[in-house]
Amino acid sequence: MVKIHKLKEFLEQNKTAKLKQIITKNQDQEVAMLIDQLDNKNKVKLYLLIPTKRASEVLWEVSQYSRKIILRSLKNKYIASVIEKTESDDSADILGEVSERAAKKIIEQLPEEKKEAIVPLTKYEEDTAGSLMKSELVSISDKVTVQKAIEALKKEDLVNINYVYIVDQTDKLKGVVTLNELITASPNQYVSSIMKKRLITLDANMDTGDVAEIFRREDIVALPVVDQQGRLLGRITVDDILDLVHEEATEDMFKFAGVNPNESAYDPLFDSIKKRLPWLILNLGTAFLAALTVSMFTDTLQAVVILAAFMPIVAGLGGNSGTQTLTLIVRGLALNQLSPASYRKIVLKEISVGIIHGMILGSIMGTIATIWQGNVMIGLTIFMAMTISITLAGFIATSVPMLLKKLKIDPAIASSVFITATTDIIGFFSFLGIATFFLQYLV
Amino acid sequence: MVKIHKLKEFLEQNKTAKLKQIITKNQDQEVAMLIDQLDNKNKVKLYLLIPTKRASEVLWEVSQYSRKIILRSLKNKYIASVIEKTESDDSADILGEVSERAAKKIIEQLPEEKKEAIVPLTKYEEDTAGSLMKSELVSISDKVTVQKAIEALKKEDLVNINYVYIVDQTDKLKGVVTLNELITASPNQYVSSIMKKRLITLDANMDTGDVAEIFRREDIVALPVVDQQGRLLGRITVDDILDLVHEEATEDMFKFAGVNPNESAYDPLFDSIKKRLPWLILNLGTAFLAALTVSMFTDTLQAVVILAAFMPIVAGLGGNSGTQTLTLIVRGLALNQLSPASYRKIVLKEISVGIIHGMILGSIMGTIATIWQGNVMIGLTIFMAMTISITLAGFIATSVPMLLKKLKIDPAIASSVFITATTDIIGFFSFLGIATFFLQYLV
Repeated sequence: MVKIHKLKEFLEQNKTAKLKQIITKNQDQEVAMLIDQLDNKNKVKLYLLIPTKRASEVLWEVSQYSRKIILRSLKNKYIASVIEKTESDDSADILGEVSERAAKKIIEQLPEEKKEAIVPLTKYEEDTAGSLMKSELVSISDKVTVQKAIEALKKEDLVNINYVYIVDQTDKLKGVVTLNELITASPNQYVSSIMKKRLITLDANMDTGDVAEIFRREDIVALPVVDQQGRLLGRITVDDILDLVHEEATEDMFKFAGVNPNESAYDPLFDSIKKRLPWLILNLGTAFLAALTVSMFTDTLQAVVILAAFMPIVAGLGGNSGTQTLTLIVRGLALNQLSPASYRKIVLKEISVGIIHGMILGSIMGTIATIWQGNVMIGLTIFMAMTISITLAGFIATSVPMLLKKLKIDPAIASSVFITATTDIIGFFSFLGIATFFLQYLV
Repeated sequence: MVKIHKLKEFLEQNKTAKLKQIITKNQDQEVAMLIDQLDNKNKVKLYLLIPTKRASEVLWEVSQYSRKIILRSLKNKYIASVIEKTESDDSADILGEVSERAAKKIIEQLPEEKKEAIVPLTKYEEDTAGSLMKSELVSISDKVTVQKAIEALKKEDLVNINYVYIVDQTDKLKGVVTLNELITASPNQYVSSIMKKRLITLDANMDTGDVAEIFRREDIVALPVVDQQGRLLGRITVDDILDLVHEEATEDMFKFAGVNPNESAYDPLFDSIKKRLPWLILNLGTAFLAALTVSMFTDTLQAVVILAAFMPIVAGLGGNSGTQTLTLIVRGLALNQLSPASYRKIVLKEISVGIIHGMILGSIMGTIATIWQGNVMIGLTIFMAMTISITLAGFIATSVPMLLKKLKIDPAIASSVFITATTDIIGFFSFLGIATFFLQYLV
């Protein structure tokens, strides 16, 4: 790949031929990576050199920040020319990224046919099946023969067609035929006699996560989307599902760590700070609660100052064991692998895991502390505090996400910051509380 | 869905008809979820009631623990009967899960045709393109006409065929034709004249992550796998890629939190403990290092015991901001979004983010501490310690995963435990070190 400082040189010196050559030689993702590394002016400059038929793909590969910068600088006419060469679902997505006013102006410039394909798609909410849907498909009447169907297919100028959808005169979806079946059937048969009638259809308002789950389960490359009356609206293809699963995986991980899913490592400094700082300030608040807990026990700490050294062990192990449980539960809930009927059993199991982990880890650290400090009561205090805090961590890390799920709140979003804060407070409170109770044996 | 205690009753009372009805009514994933919740004996009992053509799908949906239990109990003959109804790639995967001896015996019982399809697939390592590949495909000679190709296709009893691969007499892959193109072409044309010759082919030893990336980039539903000489070995289909991306997303998250990617919330108690405890013991070791750091400063803590209350704030914020950076970098590296040429720039940016975050968060907490404790030097100590530890956290969280990537070690696996331990130690050391330096102003 071209060195970024070379690329900048070419851009400064307007070496268009060189730049076009770089674009041709690199794949969409690589071109996007180069754009992400450039400053705002050069992002747009390089983007405008991309051939329009590749422009839409690259636009989705760049970071959200770059996309914003590019779309803001492009002329509506140019965006319209990109959309003309783009499938309807991606076109609708592009229109969703510009202002409503700009979207209207862009639509005005599109040819009638394209307008008809895209406008209905723009009305669907993000995260619904409708937002993944494209209008391009092959549908034929249930009254025609295989021969006629093949002729109709020949007229269409579509790539990546795998299914032909069969509709009645009111556009209601009646069945589906694979190209394979069309080829294999005898030409005079009616399509209605070879079509599959037991169909899996998607509702346009269905959640995208559920759509992805159906694709995964059915091992299928495209599914039709219908309205309440069963009329064919469009289709969703597996390549969009692959992108979706890819993005959702990143999103889940990012949410867990308090990172904005749209952040890229190449975003400018202050953009990153604006995205990350609010989460850290929230963390500062919860950490302050932990500090307040500790401050309740300054007399105890004054008397046995070595307790301060063990504080991070008790809190840390509670946090780490809680995070293990939390990850398992949050992911299980996200993938619909946990049946609500089994919640109670799972909570009980995680409490048991916590008790056993707590006792084992508490024994190890208790023994080390006893030998180190020459005082068995310090060891015992650590043992008890670790058992309590790791057990409670297991309980909280299981029940909180389950509760959030029942309340229809995304378990991934609130859990991580909440868990570490809670395990810190529980850890400090149990450890210093027990130490205060046993204080006469510790000094 | 059926209540689990009802299901247990039916199993105990051998109500086979009822049980079969439950299996019919529920989808593969739901049946798998039920199996995961049963004890070992009943797992097998229910599994054996699944119709053989669904048996392989359900086997891949159950947890790794259930799969082990089931495969261990099944007769080789039964496994062979399941494999007969399963595509070659999944069959090879099943054989990979049983002992080598059992695999041999199962293969012996297969019909010759099935044997030929599966045996070559069993030799590929996990995580290679070969392990995802299936033998079922349609290939025809480059010497035939479209008409002949369609006739050949009619003879094949394969579903989900989207491409026909064109090979020469030595089985070398020459081109590919979509069914769509076959239908559209005139019957007397030679397939070699309509086939696409610029092909994307996969090497059987390619990493599965790279394969997934190519599928995502190319928006394609199947790709051919060839050997070093360009001979067609098999094909990989997008449904397997969808499963793969799905699993890898979970794996990355689990590795990050120190959870075994194969663990399920339904695993038995001691199985979970066996999987999670080693990671926690490793954590105990790193937490002990943090405790040792604190123990170096007992004199300081003795003199100004309230410092103990601020310790978790300094360490916690270092850990949280480090985790944000780490997640962004590890994920960016996993998705090949960060070019090695830009490493230095990214490190510098994350250090800058750290300095600014540290100064902002340090000012907030420093001000609070000053007001709370009525001592500006305590506030100043916190400000300095937070700035240092958050900056260093940014540096370490960026450079460590980049270094691991350069050493070809998976950045996800080592980073998380390492980061929290390091930020704890840095946080405690800088905070208590600065406090010791300023001690005369703090008391």
